Amino acid sequence: MRDVYTTIDGSVTAPKGFSAAGVACGIKVKGLDLAVITSDLPASVAAVFTTNLAQAAPILVSRDHVATGGGKATAIVVNSGCANACTGEDGMSHARAMAQLTATALGCDVNRVLVSSTGVIGVKLEMSKVERGISEAVGSRSSDGGPAAARAIMTTDPFPKEIAIEVNSDAGTFRIGGIAKGSGMIEPMMATMLAFLTTDAKVEPRLLQRALGAVSDRTFNAITVDGECSTNDCVFALANGASGVELGESDFDVLVDALLQVCEPLAVGIVRGGEGATKLINVRVVGATSDFDAKRTARAIANSPLVKTAIHGGDPNWGRLVAVAGRSGSAFKLDGAAVRIGSIELFANGRPYDERAPAVAEYLKGKEIDIEVDLGTGGNGASRMWTCDLTADYVKINAEYRT
Amino acid sequence: MRDVYTTIDGSVTAPKGFSAAGVACGIKVKGLDLAVITSDLPASVAAVFTTNLAQAAPILVSRDHVATGGGKATAIVVNSGCANACTGEDGMSHARAMAQLTATALGCDVNRVLVSSTGVIGVKLEMSKVERGISEAVGSRSSDGGPAAARAIMTTDPFPKEIAIEVNSDAGTFRIGGIAKGSGMIEPMMATMLAFLTTDAKVEPRLLQRALGAVSDRTFNAITVDGECSTNDCVFALANGASGVELGESDFDVLVDALLQVCEPLAVGIVRGGEGATKLINVRVVGATSDFDAKRTARAIANSPLVKTAIHGGDPNWGRLVAVAGRSGSAFKLDGAAVRIGSIELFANGRPYDERAPAVAEYLKGKEIDIEVDLGTGGNGASRMWTCDLTADYVKINAEYRT
Repeated sequence: MRDVYTTIDGSVTAPKGFSAAGVACGIKVKGLDLAVITSDLPASVAAVFTTNLAQAAPILVSRDHVATGGGKATAIVVNSGCANACTGEDGMSHARAMAQLTATALGCDVNRVLVSSTGVIGVKLEMSKVERGISEAVGSRSSDGGPAAARAIMTTDPFPKEIAIEVNSDAGTFRIGGIAKGSGMIEPMMATMLAFLTTDAKVEPRLLQRALGAVSDRTFNAITVDGECSTNDCVFALANGASGVELGESDFDVLVDALLQVCEPLAVGIVRGGEGATKLINVRVVGATSDFDAKRTARAIANSPLVKTAIHGGDPNWGRLVAVAGRSGSAFKLDGAAVRIGSIELFANGRPYDERAPAVAEYLKGKEIDIEVDLGTGGNGASRMWTCDLTADYVKINAEYRT
Repeated sequence: MRDVYTTIDGSVTAPKGFSAAGVACGIKVKGLDLAVITSDLPASVAAVFTTNLAQAAPILVSRDHVATGGGKATAIVVNSGCANACTGEDGMSHARAMAQLTATALGCDVNRVLVSSTGVIGVKLEMSKVERGISEAVGSRSSDGGPAAARAIMTTDPFPKEIAIEVNSDAGTFRIGGIAKGSGMIEPMMATMLAFLTTDAKVEPRLLQRALGAVSDRTFNAITVDGECSTNDCVFALANGASGVELGESDFDVLVDALLQVCEPLAVGIVRGGEGATKLINVRVVGATSDFDAKRTARAIANSPLVKTAIHGGDPNWGRLVAVAGRSGSAFKLDGAAVRIGSIELFANGRPYDERAPAVAEYLKGKEIDIEVDLGTGGNGASRMWTCDLTADYVKINAEYRT
């Protein structure tokens, strides 16, 4: 049968056997700033970490715990308001202590706890606050605490990003939940991309890791707000098997498709909530000699300040798209190239159709904009990126920080 | 003796045997929009072209003329207000006609004329206007027409970029002049980087090309306003020998150093006049394993919207610099890394010196900002890039174009 996905409430606590909490312990001036997500049973774990070489202490500690935890994890502990990055040996001690405090409260091994932080770089955690927060969060966690956790990981995010689905597949019925935060790609606008996923399906750690990698490439690694990559980015997935449904090698596609149902809206939500963003832009590149080339060009377009400002201004400026495609490093043939905005072709076969510009200008008044660029090579390479427009508010938010 | 450089008036017509003019022929709504630069004697020519694969017609025609002109050129003809890019076969005919009209008026071979355009992409030249402009410019050109030419190539540039120097060297006394325009990296804000250089030294075309390549890498290729690369970028150099001074292989360093004296202020001038710019930022990266790595990181920093907005806001935000260095793709060691703004070290040996932030905030109120990032590898690789801050005006200028 065709898999059926039903959206349900509860985010990361919608799958069976998961609890969560979000509490305020004073790391931020106000609001929830510490979350725990726990599994009743040891869960298979998979993780994707930032590629930034300036890695924050919690990233280093979580990497170590994923490597030494035997493929299992029991809890994730996260704080917002302080990235615990560029904090030297003290920072490492603090990240380890966050894991240890959580492990002690839960009665599990320390390497079964993953740690994550987001917030200001170069500032140390006040551990007395963190200790109080962990104690309170572990004590108050519940099976409907997912939404509070989604709020506790927010920094400059204008809204929480959370989703849960129930999947009806041949393998059985199971659930997946997820939460994420943005909203620039990087701190110190206290912004880092984090996402935490839970499922009550039973999945071996290696299979979960493969699926998470494949899905991340098509979702979290296919979005950009400002082209920056944080010191603290990470995605964690926990699979605890509480539904009794087991997904094996032959169910890989089921797992990937189901994770996509959760990760795509979370990733797109991060872009929608991007700093200063007013429009969601879906960039598709086709006609490339390879998917690699297509993704490179899609990324160049999605990060182009001239494209992003043109969309912001509602300007049907195909010339900027052709120019970025030409400089992107991918094979490109101007004679065969084409630019479509919405469903309207503005440039094709080496010539513009400027008489169609007014219709495109009308389309650009919308909040969701589709752009398609054909690189004109005749190849089958294709890729997609999501981005947002570049606005004066982005500049304002990022120029006025701390001043 | 040590070479002595004296700044003089006259830009491209300061060297002997060059004439120029800038006229208004109606391509732009108002202002000068067509320039010619001519040499009394056939001059050795060197050229650097955009690497964008979407190349404008004048770029293709000038490439051809440089290749077939026997290393010599007599004139450069340039219009602003229309890029003649993405204009198909008609565009090629128009670019060839610009060269032919100039060649006929001067009585030289067509492949001794280089053509350049800057302005809106995808719009065709009105050749009746161009024809009138070329006729008027060739007829009115003079040995003090350089400054008018500098103004005729401007688009959104807030001020002209022009310079001339007299060089006293062991090889003799000669002059170099140059003009350039910005001011985004790309049209359709009608912006493309163009630079035209003249010298009355006698230099063989191959030596001139080698010197121009070396100097461009350290000047025009070491600046960025918004990371974009135009369809029309080009730098042309003409050496006509009218001073009687000949620079041979053994004078290569003299030539490079002298060209640097002209090209660096022109390049920096383009950044100073960048769209919306209020501050000039000099980014230096040291401690890299190679110059290549250093340049890659310097470029990433110079294009980082978070760095550029932080400088705009006067925020001593070393964390953003560390984060960009870490994601730039170059070898990086956080423990050995350092960040200096002005002469003040804000981060070193893995720890911040936030007590120095107020002094840096004061420094950041200035208009010229030096940033130095040490990648901490212990290597000798170093590089420099110039950029400007990212402001709400940049967004405004580029969002409101054509709307």
